[in-house]
Amino acid sequence: MLDLFFSKAKLMQAVNTVMKAVPTRTSLPILECLLLEAKNGSVTVMANDMEMAIRSETGGTIISEGTIAVDAKLFSDIIRNLPEDEVHIKTDSNLQMEITSADSYFTMSGKSGDDFIGMPTLDKGMPVTLSQLTLKEIIDQTIFSISASENNKMMTGELMEIKGNMLRVAALDGHRIAIRYSVMNQEEDIEPVSVIVPGKTLNDLSRILSGDAGKLVNIYIGKNHILFSFDGTTVVSRLIEGEYFRIDQMISENYETKLVFNRKRLLNCIERSTILVRESDKKPLIFDIKNGGATLSLTSIMGSMKEEIEAEKEGIDLMIGFNPRFLIDALRAISDEKITLYLTNSRAPGFIRDEQGTYIYLILPVNFVSR
Amino acid sequence: MLDLFFSKAKLMQAVNTVMKAVPTRTSLPILECLLLEAKNGSVTVMANDMEMAIRSETGGTIISEGTIAVDAKLFSDIIRNLPEDEVHIKTDSNLQMEITSADSYFTMSGKSGDDFIGMPTLDKGMPVTLSQLTLKEIIDQTIFSISASENNKMMTGELMEIKGNMLRVAALDGHRIAIRYSVMNQEEDIEPVSVIVPGKTLNDLSRILSGDAGKLVNIYIGKNHILFSFDGTTVVSRLIEGEYFRIDQMISENYETKLVFNRKRLLNCIERSTILVRESDKKPLIFDIKNGGATLSLTSIMGSMKEEIEAEKEGIDLMIGFNPRFLIDALRAISDEKITLYLTNSRAPGFIRDEQGTYIYLILPVNFVSR
Repeated sequence: MLDLFFSKAKLMQAVNTVMKAVPTRTSLPILECLLLEAKNGSVTVMANDMEMAIRSETGGTIISEGTIAVDAKLFSDIIRNLPEDEVHIKTDSNLQMEITSADSYFTMSGKSGDDFIGMPTLDKGMPVTLSQLTLKEIIDQTIFSISASENNKMMTGELMEIKGNMLRVAALDGHRIAIRYSVMNQEEDIEPVSVIVPGKTLNDLSRILSGDAGKLVNIYIGKNHILFSFDGTTVVSRLIEGEYFRIDQMISENYETKLVFNRKRLLNCIERSTILVRESDKKPLIFDIKNGGATLSLTSIMGSMKEEIEAEKEGIDLMIGFNPRFLIDALRAISDEKITLYLTNSRAPGFIRDEQGTYIYLILPVNFVSR
Repeated sequence: MLDLFFSKAKLMQAVNTVMKAVPTRTSLPILECLLLEAKNGSVTVMANDMEMAIRSETGGTIISEGTIAVDAKLFSDIIRNLPEDEVHIKTDSNLQMEITSADSYFTMSGKSGDDFIGMPTLDKGMPVTLSQLTLKEIIDQTIFSISASENNKMMTGELMEIKGNMLRVAALDGHRIAIRYSVMNQEEDIEPVSVIVPGKTLNDLSRILSGDAGKLVNIYIGKNHILFSFDGTTVVSRLIEGEYFRIDQMISENYETKLVFNRKRLLNCIERSTILVRESDKKPLIFDIKNGGATLSLTSIMGSMKEEIEAEKEGIDLMIGFNPRFLIDALRAISDEKITLYLTNSRAPGFIRDEQGTYIYLILPVNFVSR
């Protein structure tokens, strides 16, 4: 039977972290639980939605070790609302949990910890080490390009590829590709590895990571699983099986026209154009490119817009149409003051990429009727 | 044909105000529009959902007067996203609207202003005058007690009653009553008047009012309509017909037990208890009142809670059960550090009221099985 004292703040931080692995809807009630475990002098909470499992240390003082599974949402709600920072948790042989803080006393029923599905295990080889900030950024700067549809499982994940001391992360959905490169401070060489990580895992991971440039995350890659370890927290996720798309073949170095835009100015203009586009229809935003800049225009059933925008241009004049939302996603993921757009013709993909080779955003054009 | 120059900021403020009278769903397309009107040297926007109409001055420079009805949401989205503060709006004989700001140019289609349903008129007698802050507060402090159900139309509105220089506002839903009193700085006596104002009108009005104690609102009460006038904005609403409930007969001065609680302490404790209550079930929060304070407890299918809370008590010991959400609503609407709860027995209503007579919150008790 458990008998533990916690700091509410530290317990809540751990609970909030593992809640990401509690599914909102499930037919298996045990998945709605988190496991509270005091063993070998350390206290942890854990949740597992069968795709991803998260375990996090809570700190605390152990009077008596043990384990219990409790409804994650109810437990989290109770702890969050307790009046004082000192929290006392006890369980009895009937799996009843008592929670006490100052004058406030709660009881709730638990399930046996033996019913809980534990963390998947993987052979821990040499880890890849990154700052939490870098990992969070490369996820956030690419994740929007995964596909929301389950039709092609591989498109719902991201490629994570390590070669030498270079990490490459890529996502694509059939209309666009987002690629980010990051140099790792690896002391020893690591064997090249390439895996596909579920998008949901990376989205959740990004929300848990502190975004602190001074804090590290260790990544262990196994045959079927990937493990992220940081700040007393362990995230283990299944990998998506298969070989990823050959993205190198999709990317070309050739272009006919090169345009340098002020990123914010271009982004604001494109955002304005989407006022005239409802979710369901796919009206292209047309770039009419001439010396000195571009005229952006969009016409829908709701109305029309037209705006001149300056750009440094090299190469031929051309007209090309894009889905404005894809451009917005890419431009928001870049922090540079200026961006460079490379075009070939109205039917070839456009690229936004930087000189340093840290990002490439490829977007397929949309057919349009020129007026 | 209209030809106008606006400050985007001022135009947006007026548009945001009248948007409250644009219904989200309607079978009458003209109701989704707002009317832009330049007449007699002043420019206004107006919307009307047939229950409530709002007109607001926009400022601006008139080159040519006229009127047009345009889709409210689209117009609002375009104006909000324009790049510069100076906005130029023109219409042509085909009811096409052109909107220009810096290098950005939009067009959208409008409807004839003649199709628009104008503001209801009412005989303006002597107004009642209040500060915007006072009106906003008395609405917010009572509106939660109206009924969400349309079964009894009168319960969906609030009583506004003026006698001498006293304004009384009341709301009830069959389980509780909320009453607020406010002294007005009326110079001359006004004829006593008592009307029922739709809850939706008051909710919207509260969001438009600035909450500035130094700014006034004039209220004109007609036979079928009420008009609120402030800051260049006019809100006209239908009244709910009928005679309101006789609330004076529901309120008693007698009690057996009087309890003085620290409001925040009591509120936090009651909020904690609702963790164990799902929306659908109605578990009572039981007060077991003895000398020195009360023990609050609640048991549901999810678990149980118990908490001791101090109170200055006069009168007999008793047990009584309440819907915790009704207590929370009342306690949040009060800003006093201490509140006084008056009880008679476990089947009689409880009252929270202050000595100065500015508020009364009556709550019916709930049956409970004492353990």
